[in-house]
Amino acid sequence: MLCLISQFCGFCRVFVEFFARSGTNHTIDLFSTIRAMKIEKYPAKTHALRVRQNLYALAPSYFSNPREAPVLLLASPRTVYWPFCDQTQPFRQNRNFFYLSGCDLPDSYLTYDTSSHAIVLYLPPVDADDVMWSGLPLSLNEAKAQFDVDDVRYSDKLGSEMASIFSGRTILTVEPLTGAEHAKILGQWPNAVKSVAAADTHVLEALEEARMIKDEYELGLMRQAASISNQAHLEVMSTMNLHTNEKHIHAEFVYHSMRAGSKNQSYDPICCSGHSCSTLHYVKNDEDFAGRQLILIDAGAEWKNYASDVTRTFPINGEWTTEARAIYELVLDMQTSCEKLVAPGTSWEGLHLLAHKILVKGFLKLGIFKGGSEEEILQSRVSCAFFPHGLGHMLGMDTHDTGGKANYQDPDPMYRYLRIRRNLESGMVVTVEPGIYFSPFLINPYIQGDDGLGLGGKFIDRYVLEKYWDVGGVRIEDDVLVTETGHENFTKVPKDPDELSAIIKKALIVS
Amino acid sequence: MLCLISQFCGFCRVFVEFFARSGTNHTIDLFSTIRAMKIEKYPAKTHALRVRQNLYALAPSYFSNPREAPVLLLASPRTVYWPFCDQTQPFRQNRNFFYLSGCDLPDSYLTYDTSSHAIVLYLPPVDADDVMWSGLPLSLNEAKAQFDVDDVRYSDKLGSEMASIFSGRTILTVEPLTGAEHAKILGQWPNAVKSVAAADTHVLEALEEARMIKDEYELGLMRQAASISNQAHLEVMSTMNLHTNEKHIHAEFVYHSMRAGSKNQSYDPICCSGHSCSTLHYVKNDEDFAGRQLILIDAGAEWKNYASDVTRTFPINGEWTTEARAIYELVLDMQTSCEKLVAPGTSWEGLHLLAHKILVKGFLKLGIFKGGSEEEILQSRVSCAFFPHGLGHMLGMDTHDTGGKANYQDPDPMYRYLRIRRNLESGMVVTVEPGIYFSPFLINPYIQGDDGLGLGGKFIDRYVLEKYWDVGGVRIEDDVLVTETGHENFTKVPKDPDELSAIIKKALIVS
Repeated sequence: MLCLISQFCGFCRVFVEFFARSGTNHTIDLFSTIRAMKIEKYPAKTHALRVRQNLYALAPSYFSNPREAPVLLLASPRTVYWPFCDQTQPFRQNRNFFYLSGCDLPDSYLTYDTSSHAIVLYLPPVDADDVMWSGLPLSLNEAKAQFDVDDVRYSDKLGSEMASIFSGRTILTVEPLTGAEHAKILGQWPNAVKSVAAADTHVLEALEEARMIKDEYELGLMRQAASISNQAHLEVMSTMNLHTNEKHIHAEFVYHSMRAGSKNQSYDPICCSGHSCSTLHYVKNDEDFAGRQLILIDAGAEWKNYASDVTRTFPINGEWTTEARAIYELVLDMQTSCEKLVAPGTSWEGLHLLAHKILVKGFLKLGIFKGGSEEEILQSRVSCAFFPHGLGHMLGMDTHDTGGKANYQDPDPMYRYLRIRRNLESGMVVTVEPGIYFSPFLINPYIQGDDGLGLGGKFIDRYVLEKYWDVGGVRIEDDVLVTETGHENFTKVPKDPDELSAIIKKALIVS
Repeated sequence: MLCLISQFCGFCRVFVEFFARSGTNHTIDLFSTIRAMKIEKYPAKTHALRVRQNLYALAPSYFSNPREAPVLLLASPRTVYWPFCDQTQPFRQNRNFFYLSGCDLPDSYLTYDTSSHAIVLYLPPVDADDVMWSGLPLSLNEAKAQFDVDDVRYSDKLGSEMASIFSGRTILTVEPLTGAEHAKILGQWPNAVKSVAAADTHVLEALEEARMIKDEYELGLMRQAASISNQAHLEVMSTMNLHTNEKHIHAEFVYHSMRAGSKNQSYDPICCSGHSCSTLHYVKNDEDFAGRQLILIDAGAEWKNYASDVTRTFPINGEWTTEARAIYELVLDMQTSCEKLVAPGTSWEGLHLLAHKILVKGFLKLGIFKGGSEEEILQSRVSCAFFPHGLGHMLGMDTHDTGGKANYQDPDPMYRYLRIRRNLESGMVVTVEPGIYFSPFLINPYIQGDDGLGLGGKFIDRYVLEKYWDVGGVRIEDDVLVTETGHENFTKVPKDPDELSAIIKKALIVS
């Protein structure tokens, strides 16, 4: 992990400008605070500054009087039990809460005073019964030592303390903090109770834009997540002698993630084989491999709330069929050609279009497309029948992370599901994940002329297509950081088709 | 799986009596329906009959006019997304909904007409976008073939259809079906919308009492869950050469469960070592074994929504210390002595007391207790400092299953956390899980005289106790069915201390 200061310097000019404009003289003090921070802590205060900077840009009027600058109030999820059951529902930390605290506990709150720059964390009071069953929770002092915040207190004091401290101030929240549980805590703070019933969209946007650009600390966590996934994917391939069913590769991936300390997957692993590979969000993961060609495994370990997201496709018995290899090489060409161009300023829409162009050219060569020029076929959008999803998405605490500005209402099927609609910037982490699928649900409407455009189907050679249904689907996905000079690929899992063959054959010989 | 009819006959007398008393002539038809059921289906209709029978016993006035007998309305959980995220929260089927349908889908409803005995299942309508990503869902016909219900329809018709079919009938729910999602579905059924705002406690109790007694179909599922856990526990012990940290044994257990098709654990596995073993609900599972004596692993695979729940404790290096072996043998004596007595009519409180008596006798022999008779020490409740939880609990779809009638307000610490406060009956499945823990949080209050009774501490020999802190904790837990003549133990994992030693030593030699 690099020192935070170097990261902070990356935006300090704007930050200084902001304080100069807002007329406060706290700038020097704030810098000292940042410098005094222990570098091993999750950098909540740096994140808070970024959020404040974004909020100022989005809603300068909030800051017209520095002494009335808003107070942000965020809550972590409440502990929720399954109905009529004493087991709690799985906990997943609120990403925005974590971003401003580094704290992974439920039932907590934080306030961030954009004027004094103070973050105060409020933990649930100690419950004696709970101590009996679960041991002592983190003490206030331990929490203060662990988290990059200015103070830690118990949440039963939040309402009354804040009523006096923030009397008359504007309280902004990201999501409405309504319901009995919140009312119990916030009830003595009528000002807040009134404000927090509605979320402030500027605060949300300020947070999401901040989260989009990762700092070195976050990149350290993401590299660790990626590294665990690298190993787990390789282990799945290297143990193919043990696996005859999708559930086995699912278990194998989870096993190596957990052994490396990743208790949670970033998302439900997609472990498919044969025809199942054409179902984009397949999560059944329970079919036998017998008689099938390919395995597609889309799985990523999570590390301290940061995601990885990796897909590999390989032949079950180590031997590529002619058709599977042709499709695989085409997807690999799409993937590597796009990845090469990842750099600040690159248009993501342009990369997505490039992937489609390579697909169209390849399909013409294979004879799956016919009867039109590359441009005509591209314009018909028939390639969307085979590559229906976007080239990739932002990656961060969420698998589909913030800041992509997708437009799911786009009338153009080429871009409707593209999750990034902006140019790349240094500090973004994106997935590059083209795919080609042979799914009747997706392709038949084009063949039958029900594609909404009435054009594409005529370019599909149904007789040639017939040979490819059994390929199912191929996707290759890497996690790529946009650097100042280009990019860094976090994903080191082999993707060369011969290398994949060799790994799997070696595993099968071992058996 | 045995034929359902044999199970059904177990309560048919009461059932026939109920219909005779309520004046309906449907009895013969209903019997034919039951007999015609395919035995491989989850027996939802048999369960419904049991629930109706219980409801009649609890609230006969509901049935005073058979034509106005109530309609039960249950919902499965809505699909919920994490905040500001396109990932859904983990799904866990509502146990009562599953009991009356065998259906494991979210966003569904069922109606059970206690007059006609018809169960109708309402599935969410097909979403075109969802098909693109996830493939075709179960069709109505497939669902009808798969589930033991009378009809399957789409839920967008529920409100309007039911408004006419159940006009004027009493609608009863188990939990309030409020909120915008339910209102959208039920809005055209004003009668229901009004009724379902409050749950009916009789229906809940009728369901919970029915679920407490397992039928042969359910026992088949529970045997399968137990069998997966048997194998997974043995695999953990047999691979101790691979493990140096709690996370490794956690991963190993989950791996073998998943490979056997158990995607979900019945509960968050408790994988502890050394001092951690004294924390009853330890779920950190991330500490190194170095320098520690024992491992305690409390984990159970789930099979089609039915739980298993098994604990084993064993020495990390295969060698018992004198103290660990003494405590282990004492817990084993408590466990086997209680298990032997599991049979219909046995008082669970009596078994719990027996376990405490064995503990007291054993501690007197070891010298941890002194200065009083067995009876005096037992009366002082000081044994609760070492064995603070109950002897066990009902097991079924929930790990702590329904029907136990615990009394957490009991002033007597001996029984406060005992989850079963009734005599055993044939068809119950219970865990038998005594434990002895050396936890400062639990023991120091007794030593310091803060136990609320002010008596127990004097019986503890602190100098002898000193030797035992490093044992941490020992728990042994089996899943036991109460049969008509006694019991059947589903748990086959070795628990003999020498056998455990041998398994672990063999694993370590392999490495």
